[in-house]
Amino acid sequence: MGTCDVLIVGSGIIGLTSAYHIKRLNPDLDILVIDQFSMAGQGDTAKSAGAFRAFFSSRTNFLLANTSIDFYRHVQEELKFDLGMRFNGYLFLLAKGKYVELKGLIDEVGKKGVPYSFVDTNELKEYGVNTEVSHDEEAALMGLEDVYVGLLIKKAGILKPERLVEFYEGECKRLGVRFLFNTKVKALLREPLKPLGIPGEPFPWQDSEITGVITQDGKMIKARKKVILATGSWTPQLLEPLGLPSVIRSKKRQIFVIKAETPELRRLLFYKGFSNEGFAPFTILPKHMFFRPSPEEESFWIGYADPYTGFKFEENPLPEERFYIEGIYPVLVKYFPQFTDMRPSTSWAGLYDVNPVDEGPLVYEVSNVIVAAGTSGSGIMKADAIGRVVAAVLKGKDEAELFGSKVIKVKDLSLSDRSFEPERLVL
Amino acid sequence: MGTCDVLIVGSGIIGLTSAYHIKRLNPDLDILVIDQFSMAGQGDTAKSAGAFRAFFSSRTNFLLANTSIDFYRHVQEELKFDLGMRFNGYLFLLAKGKYVELKGLIDEVGKKGVPYSFVDTNELKEYGVNTEVSHDEEAALMGLEDVYVGLLIKKAGILKPERLVEFYEGECKRLGVRFLFNTKVKALLREPLKPLGIPGEPFPWQDSEITGVITQDGKMIKARKKVILATGSWTPQLLEPLGLPSVIRSKKRQIFVIKAETPELRRLLFYKGFSNEGFAPFTILPKHMFFRPSPEEESFWIGYADPYTGFKFEENPLPEERFYIEGIYPVLVKYFPQFTDMRPSTSWAGLYDVNPVDEGPLVYEVSNVIVAAGTSGSGIMKADAIGRVVAAVLKGKDEAELFGSKVIKVKDLSLSDRSFEPERLVL
Repeated sequence: MGTCDVLIVGSGIIGLTSAYHIKRLNPDLDILVIDQFSMAGQGDTAKSAGAFRAFFSSRTNFLLANTSIDFYRHVQEELKFDLGMRFNGYLFLLAKGKYVELKGLIDEVGKKGVPYSFVDTNELKEYGVNTEVSHDEEAALMGLEDVYVGLLIKKAGILKPERLVEFYEGECKRLGVRFLFNTKVKALLREPLKPLGIPGEPFPWQDSEITGVITQDGKMIKARKKVILATGSWTPQLLEPLGLPSVIRSKKRQIFVIKAETPELRRLLFYKGFSNEGFAPFTILPKHMFFRPSPEEESFWIGYADPYTGFKFEENPLPEERFYIEGIYPVLVKYFPQFTDMRPSTSWAGLYDVNPVDEGPLVYEVSNVIVAAGTSGSGIMKADAIGRVVAAVLKGKDEAELFGSKVIKVKDLSLSDRSFEPERLVL
Repeated sequence: MGTCDVLIVGSGIIGLTSAYHIKRLNPDLDILVIDQFSMAGQGDTAKSAGAFRAFFSSRTNFLLANTSIDFYRHVQEELKFDLGMRFNGYLFLLAKGKYVELKGLIDEVGKKGVPYSFVDTNELKEYGVNTEVSHDEEAALMGLEDVYVGLLIKKAGILKPERLVEFYEGECKRLGVRFLFNTKVKALLREPLKPLGIPGEPFPWQDSEITGVITQDGKMIKARKKVILATGSWTPQLLEPLGLPSVIRSKKRQIFVIKAETPELRRLLFYKGFSNEGFAPFTILPKHMFFRPSPEEESFWIGYADPYTGFKFEENPLPEERFYIEGIYPVLVKYFPQFTDMRPSTSWAGLYDVNPVDEGPLVYEVSNVIVAAGTSGSGIMKADAIGRVVAAVLKGKDEAELFGSKVIKVKDLSLSDRSFEPERLVL
């Protein structure tokens, strides 16, 4: 049987930032991070599109993303640890209706100090966007709208999730956090506060709490102080069998890689007009489809966080080429004809762990467990801040200090006493 | 293919109150209620303990329960429709710690106009409670505490769920609501707003909404205006495959029937000291265990909403005698030795449909569907009010008028813009 003070289940980005900030603030605590994989960051963190943006209308989203991005920039620029962070920007292609609907809100967010600019259709055409789709009969039937304007966010871009994982894992190890890999959790361990020594304990009428975990091979690992679940989509699998609250549901999200093999795609990929990075921005089409430029491998990562994919937990989600062919391709080629006839060279799938209430992240404590989950696809860009909130909850504090001396109330991310503005900037 | 204006899935108590209040306010709408069973109220409504109390600390719980109970009393006393409503009261047996912790709160709720009284240990002993368990070595080891005081709520008691079902079903039929039984829903029907006539529709990029349901035998039933899910624990089974938000989880709850076969149990059952009904109050033991007197069948219904039962959906939950023997009996006989050696003559199990966020009911709209769920075991005592909220949401109103001209904001019960005080009177 293993023991520690704080047991963190999951070495994805949320588990790592939690471990790092807890250890930083509590150097004497013995912290153990366990993970089912053989190294850190191999779950859904590795499946991420690896992009970030500071532009959110929700006060809490804004705070979590901005302070995390500021910290990552600090790591890369001042600590000289290369996270692969590139400020190539986000470019949202907006139909007129969306622009009219959201213009005021965009202006509000801009005033909070995140610069943006509008890009007219001439410049979008120069980039390579087919802005006028509505006179294409098929596109009209499909319900596709003309692009009216582009919204360019500069405090946004791409990074390398594996480098972020390396940074936090390295810092954790330097501070003395222990890691145990190849250790899959079967269940949370619930023990009576006053054991009777009778088979069948704990009985329902016995006061009990979570004291650790039971691993797949039957070992117990106990935490003297607290168990932290940074288990993404696995969270309900661990909480629900014991009657503990979880609202997390999973949605499969897929990435299809298209190589920039034609002159037209290379021109698009290395378009220099929107940033100083020398390649295209992370680009979001009107139907929430997106492509992420990957300049080093000369490819595009294409994804689509469509609203209709069902909630479903899967241990090993697989990409479906049909989703590319029917779900993505018909729309993609209308706005970017450069992709005509292109098929993915590779693809993968992961799970968003979604908080269906407001799609905002959750950090809450129940029965001696701190749960950090529900990042709904924006975990990497908010991870540093979420780790700091977890550390504050562990210390029993009402507020967490985020990077840059910004402060957040920890209850704003809680389950039942929550104050989270749903994101209205859904572009 | 069937059609209607408003399709209500589920003829449990929530489906029936919704149908009734919608039809009452919109006599011209064609309303169809469908259900998998051969008659109304045969799902978890039939498994209920059939009890009610007006005493809640949460503002919303208080409003929902009080106005519903007032309406039921109006039905029984003025409309002369017998609901089997008996005001035998609720008696909570409180340990000293609980009393000290909640005294202020109890006083606050009392001031809102729901009378209560404290019952001293002499009177509790007269009723038949063994208030002093702590000098019993076994009870002390079990962590059981002495009963310090009883809290007696008078606006509380028992009713017959089947009579409540009969009332609403009868009123619905009188007003012209249609019912279709033996009709199990396999899935919600999602259709594109602008169909292309291509196989595979709707595609993820097509705007679409829920327009009806597909039944188990492959028939479509469409709603011109709205689909209402009053489907309790089944709710996530219908919403989640389409990616629509649901937080509802299920917990099995069991009722064990003990016949009052001994003089001691008959004395307890027909104890007249707490109300004018001539039998015992609904009695709650310190570990949230309870018994409900059923004077007509001369028995007790014993249940235990323990915190540790796992969240799990089951189509046909079954009671487990082991739960009675290990989970209930050891505690029950310490406080009420009258039950010594008694075994259940019958038992059943149902599912609470729980909103894990705050355990309060949810009424929200998504993609043309109004969801009413999450009543977490207090559906019957709040059903009339919830039906009125559903009717208000259907009309697009911000407020619902409850019985007795009380008003509630419908968004207070919503999913993401919710204002619900979690219940603090957990006795």
